[in-house]
Amino acid sequence: MRRIMLSIAYDGTEYAGFQLQKNALSIEEVVNRALLELTGEEIKISGASRTDAGVHALGNLAVFDTESRIPAEKFGYALNERLPEDVKIQWSNEVEPGWHPRKQKSRKTYEYRILNRAMPEPNVRHNTFHYHYALDAEAMNEAASYFIGEHDFTSFASIHSTAETRTRTIYVAKVVKQQDTLTFRVTGSGFLYNMVRIMAGTLIEVGSGKRKPEEIKTILQGKDRNLAGPTAPACGLTLMQIELEENS
Amino acid sequence: MRRIMLSIAYDGTEYAGFQLQKNALSIEEVVNRALLELTGEEIKISGASRTDAGVHALGNLAVFDTESRIPAEKFGYALNERLPEDVKIQWSNEVEPGWHPRKQKSRKTYEYRILNRAMPEPNVRHNTFHYHYALDAEAMNEAASYFIGEHDFTSFASIHSTAETRTRTIYVAKVVKQQDTLTFRVTGSGFLYNMVRIMAGTLIEVGSGKRKPEEIKTILQGKDRNLAGPTAPACGLTLMQIELEENS
Repeated sequence: MRRIMLSIAYDGTEYAGFQLQKNALSIEEVVNRALLELTGEEIKISGASRTDAGVHALGNLAVFDTESRIPAEKFGYALNERLPEDVKIQWSNEVEPGWHPRKQKSRKTYEYRILNRAMPEPNVRHNTFHYHYALDAEAMNEAASYFIGEHDFTSFASIHSTAETRTRTIYVAKVVKQQDTLTFRVTGSGFLYNMVRIMAGTLIEVGSGKRKPEEIKTILQGKDRNLAGPTAPACGLTLMQIELEENS
Repeated sequence: MRRIMLSIAYDGTEYAGFQLQKNALSIEEVVNRALLELTGEEIKISGASRTDAGVHALGNLAVFDTESRIPAEKFGYALNERLPEDVKIQWSNEVEPGWHPRKQKSRKTYEYRILNRAMPEPNVRHNTFHYHYALDAEAMNEAASYFIGEHDFTSFASIHSTAETRTRTIYVAKVVKQQDTLTFRVTGSGFLYNMVRIMAGTLIEVGSGKRKPEEIKTILQGKDRNLAGPTAPACGLTLMQIELEENS
């Protein structure tokens, strides 16, 4: 048995999330199906990040075990011939038996994109949230800076989060404005369930003047989901990158 | 009767082009339908640029006449409530009776985007052409520079072009590389049928080493469609902007 790692990009618009589900189509299911077609084996991939329904990725990671003799690097090409156009492997390689990206120290980077103007723009509708009231990008960027560092992120986690510890380290958190698009870019050691979307929803409240940037500090200290803003829509969120630390 | 101008953005993936057709859905048809629903009038819009099947736009222009009393600026919002998510009005205003953007001097800007790497990326599949052999962006940029100026573009027009004169002026033509994406950006006084896609197809031949950049000069001089490269796929092409010259 060999263990193969895949980097998977997807437009999550039509999917009920990464993880396998009974009554809805997931990214995992279409990759498992393509692997069955390719190898004849009933393979179940295991992902690094269980992105939500409607969330996108440029490079989520997953591993699977196979008895097939296909060269590790060829899996990407062979699977892409069998995958739908909204799910494509970016690369594939072999890893040690039992190795799993979730057990490694890593840095994940997400982007939450907001189109901030009166009218929606069809060409970005799949990966950008359209918000038509004026947003103050500078105030949002200041607010984002308070996420940086090691904090208990209970206030920014879904009440359905099952994580044992809520402490995470954020390395980068900024809001950049380019023409009508605001991009909240955040890199961290890990993220709780819905965490980036609750961060984005709270930043939107800062940007629209409902909250002051420094309120992020008191929200973090309160450790209460009710203190933060709403969960921003999934469509704006993209998992950009998972960097695995070497020798971890 | 008042004449209203619309700026229309669309993801053209699912459409048989801008112009009304008998057996296929066009951008024009969905806008006409939304106008009928809004005003009760059988309105036919008339567009500035008849983009092809699968081509996108950030701001194509169109005009129509109406007896409705809806304020000109409100048409955009009211139509967007009735339009599908892949076609959205960007703004609307009133113009003089009989005025038409096709009769005005204008500068049109198109972008042709190429994702140049081994694997496709689902999040850009709607508006980027995936080309997996290596392309030399510098050579393509040099080739593009030969398009600048006033030339007879017969070699870069579809043999189905019905234009009386084939002379057009190109103001800007460049190829910019950002990570894996090459963008051919071109601004001109007007474009013949398939012209930007044939330019792009020829630039791809230059980028892959099949042709030298300076061949563009001899292709232009030959005034023969067979001398230029293939018509690049529609999905990579976006009409970015139509700038109308003032007082024209």
